[in-house]
Amino acid sequence: MIEPSIALYGEAFNRVSTLLDDLLQKAHVRYAMLVDRKGFVLAHRESLWAVKPPALDSIATLIAGNAAATSALAKLLGERRFNELVHQGERIGLYVEEVASEALLVVIFDDTAPIGRVKLYAKKSIEEIETLLESLGPLEMPDLNLGADFASSAGALLDDLFKVSR
Amino acid sequence: MIEPSIALYGEAFNRVSTLLDDLLQKAHVRYAMLVDRKGFVLAHRESLWAVKPPALDSIATLIAGNAAATSALAKLLGERRFNELVHQGERIGLYVEEVASEALLVVIFDDTAPIGRVKLYAKKSIEEIETLLESLGPLEMPDLNLGADFASSAGALLDDLFKVSR
Repeated sequence: MIEPSIALYGEAFNRVSTLLDDLLQKAHVRYAMLVDRKGFVLAHRESLWAVKPPALDSIATLIAGNAAATSALAKLLGERRFNELVHQGERIGLYVEEVASEALLVVIFDDTAPIGRVKLYAKKSIEEIETLLESLGPLEMPDLNLGADFASSAGALLDDLFKVSR
Repeated sequence: MIEPSIALYGEAFNRVSTLLDDLLQKAHVRYAMLVDRKGFVLAHRESLWAVKPPALDSIATLIAGNAAATSALAKLLGERRFNELVHQGERIGLYVEEVASEALLVVIFDDTAPIGRVKLYAKKSIEEIETLLESLGPLEMPDLNLGADFASSAGALLDDLFKVSR
C-alpha cells in the first residue's frame, strides 16, 4: 500500500492549517492544499466565500501525477525539475509550487485574485511551512510498544480463529 | 498511423516562421515552436544566441501529452480546459498556450526574459497565427487524381505480384 511520505498530526497539522487560512485571506484564493508528492492531501482549507470545492482528493492525485510527468520535460531542458507550475483557464487558475522535496502547495484561485498576489503570498507560506516541516524531522510513527502481553493475547486470538471445530 | 491535424507548407509555413522569429526577437526567448495537439512540430525557430536546442520532437510530444492530461484537472475545476500553462524551473521557463483548437504555441525562455513580456508577445503572435490558420481553411490534401489508367496499371501490378509461378 502507498503511504504518505509526511504525516501531519496534532500541533503541526494545526499550524499548517493556520498558515493555509492566512494564505486564503491574504491572497484572496478559493482553496489551498498541502499535498504529498504521491498525491495525498496533507491539509486543506477553503475560503468561506468559495463555492463548494471539487473533489480535492482527485485533484491532489492528478496534480501529483502531473508534477511527476513534467519532470521528464524539465530534464530535457536541463533543469532538475520545474518548481512552479501555473495552469490558467478562463476563470479558474491553479498554482502549484514545491514545498521542500516531499510536498506541493496547491492554490486554486479565480479571476478576483491576480496571479502576482497569489504567487507572492504562496511563496511566503511555503517558507513558513518548510521551516515547520524541518522542525518536525523525519517521519516518526508512534511507537506501538507491543510487549509480551500482546504476543500471547494475539497468539490466543489466532489459535481461536483457526480452531477446527470438532 | 497518426497524422498531424494541420499541415503547414509553402507560403503558410514561411509566414508562421516569420511570426515565430518576430516573437523570438521581441520577447527575447530561446525557442518558439508551433505544435500540433498530437505532438507534431509544425514549425520551430530558435534564437541565434541560444545554445543548441534540446530534442524538440521529444519536447513537443511531452507537451502535447501533458496538455491532454491537464484537461482532466481543468474539468474537475469546471473549466473546459486550461488554455495557458507555465512551467518554471530555476533558470528555464516553459510557456504553452492554445492556438485555435488544434495547435499549441510553445515558448522556452530563460531568466533574461520576464514572464510578463513572454506572455504579452506570445499572445500577440497567437492572434496572428490564428488569423493565418483560419485563412488556410480545413486541411486539404493534394488531389491525387487517380483515373482509369491508374486502376488498370495497379491491377496489372497486383496480378503480377500474386502470379503463381508455374
